[in-house]
Amino acid sequence: MKHHQYALTPPMGWNSWDCYGATVTEEEVIGNADYMAEHLKKFGWEYVVVDIQWSEPGAVSSAYRPFVPLDMDEYSRLVPAVNRFPSAADGQGFKPLADYVHGKGLKFGIHIMRGIPRQAVHQNTKILGSNVRARDIAKPNSICPWNTDMYGVDHTKEGAQAYYNSLFDLYAEWGVDFVKVDDIADSKLYGIHAEEIKMIRKAIDQCGRPMVLSLSPGPAPIDHASLLEENANMWRMTDDFWDLWPPLYDMFDRCYKWSKNIGPGYWPDADMLPLGHIGIRSVDGGASDRYTRFTKDEQILMMTLWSIFRSPLMFGGELRDNDDWTLSLITNEEVLEAHRNGFGARQVYRENDKVVWTSSGDKQTIYVALFNLTDNASKITVTFDQLGINGEEIEIRDLWNKENIDDVSHELSFDISPHGAKFLKLTNLSEQYCQRITRLNL
Amino acid sequence: MKHHQYALTPPMGWNSWDCYGATVTEEEVIGNADYMAEHLKKFGWEYVVVDIQWSEPGAVSSAYRPFVPLDMDEYSRLVPAVNRFPSAADGQGFKPLADYVHGKGLKFGIHIMRGIPRQAVHQNTKILGSNVRARDIAKPNSICPWNTDMYGVDHTKEGAQAYYNSLFDLYAEWGVDFVKVDDIADSKLYGIHAEEIKMIRKAIDQCGRPMVLSLSPGPAPIDHASLLEENANMWRMTDDFWDLWPPLYDMFDRCYKWSKNIGPGYWPDADMLPLGHIGIRSVDGGASDRYTRFTKDEQILMMTLWSIFRSPLMFGGELRDNDDWTLSLITNEEVLEAHRNGFGARQVYRENDKVVWTSSGDKQTIYVALFNLTDNASKITVTFDQLGINGEEIEIRDLWNKENIDDVSHELSFDISPHGAKFLKLTNLSEQYCQRITRLNL
Amino acid sequence: MKHHQYALTPPMGWNSWDCYGATVTEEEVIGNADYMAEHLKKFGWEYVVVDIQWSEPGAVSSAYRPFVPLDMDEYSRLVPAVNRFPSAADGQGFKPLADYVHGKGLKFGIHIMRGIPRQAVHQNTKILGSNVRARDIAKPNSICPWNTDMYGVDHTKEGAQAYYNSLFDLYAEWGVDFVKVDDIADSKLYGIHAEEIKMIRKAIDQCGRPMVLSLSPGPAPIDHASLLEENANMWRMTDDFWDLWPPLYDMFDRCYKWSKNIGPGYWPDADMLPLGHIGIRSVDGGASDRYTRFTKDEQILMMTLWSIFRSPLMFGGELRDNDDWTLSLITNEEVLEAHRNGFGARQVYRENDKVVWTSSGDKQTIYVALFNLTDNASKITVTFDQLGINGEEIEIRDLWNKENIDDVSHELSFDISPHGAKFLKLTNLSEQYCQRITRLNL
Amino acid sequence: MKHHQYALTPPMGWNSWDCYGATVTEEEVIGNADYMAEHLKKFGWEYVVVDIQWSEPGAVSSAYRPFVPLDMDEYSRLVPAVNRFPSAADGQGFKPLADYVHGKGLKFGIHIMRGIPRQAVHQNTKILGSNVRARDIAKPNSICPWNTDMYGVDHTKEGAQAYYNSLFDLYAEWGVDFVKVDDIADSKLYGIHAEEIKMIRKAIDQCGRPMVLSLSPGPAPIDHASLLEENANMWRMTDDFWDLWPPLYDMFDRCYKWSKNIGPGYWPDADMLPLGHIGIRSVDGGASDRYTRFTKDEQILMMTLWSIFRSPLMFGGELRDNDDWTLSLITNEEVLEAHRNGFGARQVYRENDKVVWTSSGDKQTIYVALFNLTDNASKITVTFDQLGINGEEIEIRDLWNKENIDDVSHELSFDISPHGAKFLKLTNLSEQYCQRITRLNL
Repeated sequence: MKHHQYALTPPMGWNSWDCYGATVTEEEVIGNADYMAEHLKKFGWEYVVVDIQWSEPGAVSSAYRPFVPLDMDEYSRLVPAVNRFPSAADGQGFKPLADYVHGKGLKFGIHIMRGIPRQAVHQNTKILGSNVRARDIAKPNSICPWNTDMYGVDHTKEGAQAYYNSLFDLYAEWGVDFVKVDDIADSKLYGIHAEEIKMIRKAIDQCGRPMVLSLSPGPAPIDHASLLEENANMWRMTDDFWDLWPPLYDMFDRCYKWSKNIGPGYWPDADMLPLGHIGIRSVDGGASDRYTRFTKDEQILMMTLWSIFRSPLMFGGELRDNDDWTLSLITNEEVLEAHRNGFGARQVYRENDKVVWTSSGDKQTIYVALFNLTDNASKITVTFDQLGINGEEIEIRDLWNKENIDDVSHELSFDISPHGAKFLKLTNLSEQYCQRITRLNL
Repeated sequence: MKHHQYALTPPMGWNSWDCYGATVTEEEVIGNADYMAEHLKKFGWEYVVVDIQWSEPGAVSSAYRPFVPLDMDEYSRLVPAVNRFPSAADGQGFKPLADYVHGKGLKFGIHIMRGIPRQAVHQNTKILGSNVRARDIAKPNSICPWNTDMYGVDHTKEGAQAYYNSLFDLYAEWGVDFVKVDDIADSKLYGIHAEEIKMIRKAIDQCGRPMVLSLSPGPAPIDHASLLEENANMWRMTDDFWDLWPPLYDMFDRCYKWSKNIGPGYWPDADMLPLGHIGIRSVDGGASDRYTRFTKDEQILMMTLWSIFRSPLMFGGELRDNDDWTLSLITNEEVLEAHRNGFGARQVYRENDKVVWTSSGDKQTIYVALFNLTDNASKITVTFDQLGINGEEIEIRDLWNKENIDDVSHELSFDISPHGAKFLKLTNLSEQYCQRITRLNL
Repeated sequence: MKHHQYALTPPMGWNSWDCYGATVTEEEVIGNADYMAEHLKKFGWEYVVVDIQWSEPGAVSSAYRPFVPLDMDEYSRLVPAVNRFPSAADGQGFKPLADYVHGKGLKFGIHIMRGIPRQAVHQNTKILGSNVRARDIAKPNSICPWNTDMYGVDHTKEGAQAYYNSLFDLYAEWGVDFVKVDDIADSKLYGIHAEEIKMIRKAIDQCGRPMVLSLSPGPAPIDHASLLEENANMWRMTDDFWDLWPPLYDMFDRCYKWSKNIGPGYWPDADMLPLGHIGIRSVDGGASDRYTRFTKDEQILMMTLWSIFRSPLMFGGELRDNDDWTLSLITNEEVLEAHRNGFGARQVYRENDKVVWTSSGDKQTIYVALFNLTDNASKITVTFDQLGINGEEIEIRDLWNKENIDDVSHELSFDISPHGAKFLKLTNLSEQYCQRITRLNL
Repeated sequence: MKHHQYALTPPMGWNSWDCYGATVTEEEVIGNADYMAEHLKKFGWEYVVVDIQWSEPGAVSSAYRPFVPLDMDEYSRLVPAVNRFPSAADGQGFKPLADYVHGKGLKFGIHIMRGIPRQAVHQNTKILGSNVRARDIAKPNSICPWNTDMYGVDHTKEGAQAYYNSLFDLYAEWGVDFVKVDDIADSKLYGIHAEEIKMIRKAIDQCGRPMVLSLSPGPAPIDHASLLEENANMWRMTDDFWDLWPPLYDMFDRCYKWSKNIGPGYWPDADMLPLGHIGIRSVDGGASDRYTRFTKDEQILMMTLWSIFRSPLMFGGELRDNDDWTLSLITNEEVLEAHRNGFGARQVYRENDKVVWTSSGDKQTIYVALFNLTDNASKITVTFDQLGINGEEIEIRDLWNKENIDDVSHELSFDISPHGAKFLKLTNLSEQYCQRITRLNL
């Protein structure tokens, strides 16, 4: 599983969906890439991802226009709409934009839908590298229930793999580093599309360029954890996530369920961070142009969960509109260190909506996160015994407040705001403890 | 529910599917119509039905060619492929063929798929009687899982009803008497399509011509019995039925379940009779060109069940190839009288695969059918008490053997072949009995 | 199906559940019987039904005490708890109470749970009329999920039918006229218990006394409509119904679904009428001791739906506490005539929560009910054409207001309160119409 | 998760179910313990497990006698039936037998059913360490669908944890080392019983004696993998496994699905090995007293899969009746080394029922298993590239044949019998490879 090496730590980046829906333009992508290069790159943020329907010249929001024509090359492959991505003119595709992003020291990603364009099938256009045509490889009974762009591809048909190969060959030419494939991990009609996942894995492996593979939407089925881990780098644990408490509350259960299936190169994905200025031209999530509806406590709680669990971090807002608070949330070096270096994350307990997680770090270190999911300020406690440590000569650091905590003996206990969290780092643990966790938890 | 008057007895006719799949030609339709007029009309057979994909010029069997172009008029309406139906040339559609059938004293039927052609949607063609186009009324997430011709129609869209009206107006012009609508009573993806059924009901009601409405495929959901009865004349109780014992065995349960929802004008449908010469260009049903695989006993049993239950009778074989046996099966006047005049059919009992049904007839008469569903010759018995009669001065007629049975006192008891049946008529019942059944069973 | 004769019109009566839960006493039963005899009998009300757990000496509310001992005879049959039903002393069972009710010109009913007492099984007591004991006929994997009194009975075991026969023989000795069997029509764990329904049917048929058979709880599965009709007189369409708008709103869909499966002797049951003084010692339904939470409009609407649909009418409140309004609701002769004599009830249309039903009556009569399910006053209209009548020389009667309505030409149109209804009788219809409905709707 | 230390390698032992059903006696347990001590202990086999219903004096086979009395102490705790386990006389329970097993250098295990005896509930007996009685903690709607011994315990009730504590305190007194809890990981009625699993975890943790916790039956739900891993040492992937090809074939899919959730102390369990002399008094599995119905090839295949996957190994046959072949199957040191030391097992590929697995071992070693699931002899091949190794100076060992294989360059390729397997060890792999797998696969 060579592809695990493409994402040895959870990917971090920006994605256009939460702010621009299906409508992002080249100018906006460049603007966010510039911001990332200037403000975020040094903290590990690197992917700039153009989300859905970059081939749709008339996209107006996150609501798709059914059955409209898309920009496509002669080989049934969708290409960027030039009115939205001017640099794509003259058949250059996303190469100029990818080059620009690479020039900033960043990586470039795109979204695609599983399958082959319906318009290709009804026009019966060619498939590169084969003698067949679109009609021959389309799977009749395989649509996406929420978007009319594509038909699925039938893996039993000659030319099916050739089609996917031709896609990723093109993306490799463009310089794509990250591909988010949609309508594949949890089709609302058919479950997971295992065979198309395998074709895409093969297509990437043969294309000669490392690309991180991200699967959407969720919830990906956990009884296919093996398939997901062996073929992808990340997969969604939920349907689209937005800035509302119920889905954030719900994410704790999902993380608990998936916590045994995380490792270097394979990352269950809690979805984009709907932070900062979102909904600019996206109408999903039950709201319009806005700053995130999460309270500051909820934002801390979300960042803490995503970090200790090691979800990929994909910022959803228009970066250029970040206020200081939002910027501070995603540039806390100590928190991001836990995200980058932690491992073996597990829920210590959950009782009456009080939740504690821990993970292990380098150098005789563990991380501990305490979450208050209740609607009232509450004291949350975890004993050293529950954490499996003895606590001698321990140093305790509050990661969000960037301050040390003294006078702690046998337990951690804090008053935490409603929907709030505390994120701690405990160091100078005994050598013996660290050997044990290395042996048992991995 | 005026439409119940269009089929006060269960429809009887011929359908092209079992022998010709999606490929029947005008010559073959005419040949079967001629046969029906000559040999069957006097027994009540009257509908000549052209089954699926008469718009597909290149249809080769019952296996559809995905995504191929279909013959269509400028208003998004499918029309007969002229290479297969020469009389449809010059935009005449099925009118000449319907006229021919009418000239024989028979009625003409067609099959359609729910929805609007996908090719119309991708070409965005016009909708007659409206300002909208195909793309505006197609329902994005609404396909047939086994055929690529159509998209569903979204009843909430302006122009949706206009489209269905324009279809049935055209069929009325042609002189269509019977429409079998497919992919509507049990979509394998979405369940029943209630809203499109209602649109079709309205479209027929407004078109000015009585047409029998038949819904496929099955099993139609019995918890929508009210919807089905109030909008259609017949609906399938099963998926496609073929000449194999397991589905025939299974039909007894289905008939039992539906036996309380039968009446003048609304008929649960046990599907076509796969008798005689079938599979000529149809490859469904697990076999090819053949005479029916049913034994003679099974054919008797099937005809008996269909008749006492009062399923529509649609012959599936190439009529011109009928042998004497097959012809005799469908021209037994005494059996067909039970089919035409019986009512209140009910299962008297089912024990160890011995099954007895009864129905009531005119003039102090009941019908009794005894079925041996076991694999061994068995004695099947039903007492007069179980039938609710006293048996005085009764006259008993064996309908298949056309002979009277004497010396019966308090019960009916017969040795019946494996998979065989006995069909009886009991007359001269007391007046009192007849009043009771009229009161209680109706 | 002789048993249909036991309830040729929908049963009407009183049931102790809504007011007394599992705790009703003899005094309370007698009190309600007296009231019924004096105030209701002349309107057709006749059944006095003792609901669940009359064998539980310590019953305190509608919440069962798990695993407690019940009063039982030596043959594994539950008998009335003498502390609650003093007349049952000396092994007389319910005979004295039934005699009392009969003496008032009324009928006596009881509730039982499907199966055999668990205490009988664990004590391995005798089964009358057999050589087996309780342990031999209990079905190990067959419990009620909400009450610990019984195990199911395994119909394949010798002695199983003997046990049910012994039960109904006892009830016949007592003089029981109506039996409501619970945990049988929709077990929340196992679906419908078809085999125990058939055993109970046989047990009643052999006991020599006509008893109405009522099956609970619901929703009974409509795909078993044949089984239900052939074995029972009434069966529940819903889970327990209480005095809240959402389940009342929901009942319209249920009635629509079941409207094709109603006839003399077999009645889909919309459950007790939670009217008047309820919740006295019942804690179900989300409230305690109270007058019904339904508004007067909702009460009218409920009575109208139950009456035109012809649900059994079982009053749930403490009759002796009826106010004039409540009494008037259940003693409107014109409304009850529609309930008693209507037939062929069907929903004419339902659009935007405006609903119209109609049924046919004797003597050139139809009934029409208009329901406003919206939360706003609304005009509800139905045309004569929709009703299938021409309207010449018609006479229109408002059944609740007991007044004639004049000046109506081609449609009925009324402003109706939120959650309100109008119930009308149209007479003097043409002879031709009446023939048609007799032929088509029955 | 301290309990993971109780089973750092997958448990190996003997279980009485496959040969004796619910009926094993002390003499038979001792006989198998003696055999194990003499022949198997040195190969790592150590657990001697008494399976279900050791409290049932009259058990006759694997078919339970419903509702019969069980031997129980005054505190609602089941104890061994003295007629079957004479050393349990005088309230000594399993202590003498456990002592005997320990004296042989082995470990002692028992089976229990989730819950509290129904007889305790109906007699309302005491709960040790609490003021409540059996009736107070039983969960009314919680039975086992296939055995009538117990009711579930309601974790919300006071005394519930006390009851489970009292159970495991008793087992600790007896000297129990292994507890197989049944009707808990996949109740056929209610899914997994998460709360009772947690109570049992706490009860073991507080009892002061390490006990391996094994959960049955299966299939345990993989979406509860976290719960299972955090509370148990092993859990079943299937329902009861018997000596038939279809379930063995099916096990490959199950192992694939669970292959990401294996580690030191937590073991998905492929169930007992139905090898040697089984069915002596067990009537499950569709056969009676017999030698295993598996062919020798299938036995090799099964042992290979269980070993590379690292399922617990629980021998199901009467050990004393082992023939040389059977003994050789379970005493192959090289195979058992792979079982004991392998880690990171994963399916390399599965195509057309040809399956290859690999795992990593100590000291620059990997294991490779090739399986032929087809019904024909087939060549199975895996390339070094697919295994992620370069193959220089490699040494290849056939573990079943105990011989080295030469002349292999870039792939492994063997002709394998139908339903057969090849199990190989590759050593002397490069240092670099070993580092990589340590990092990526764990």
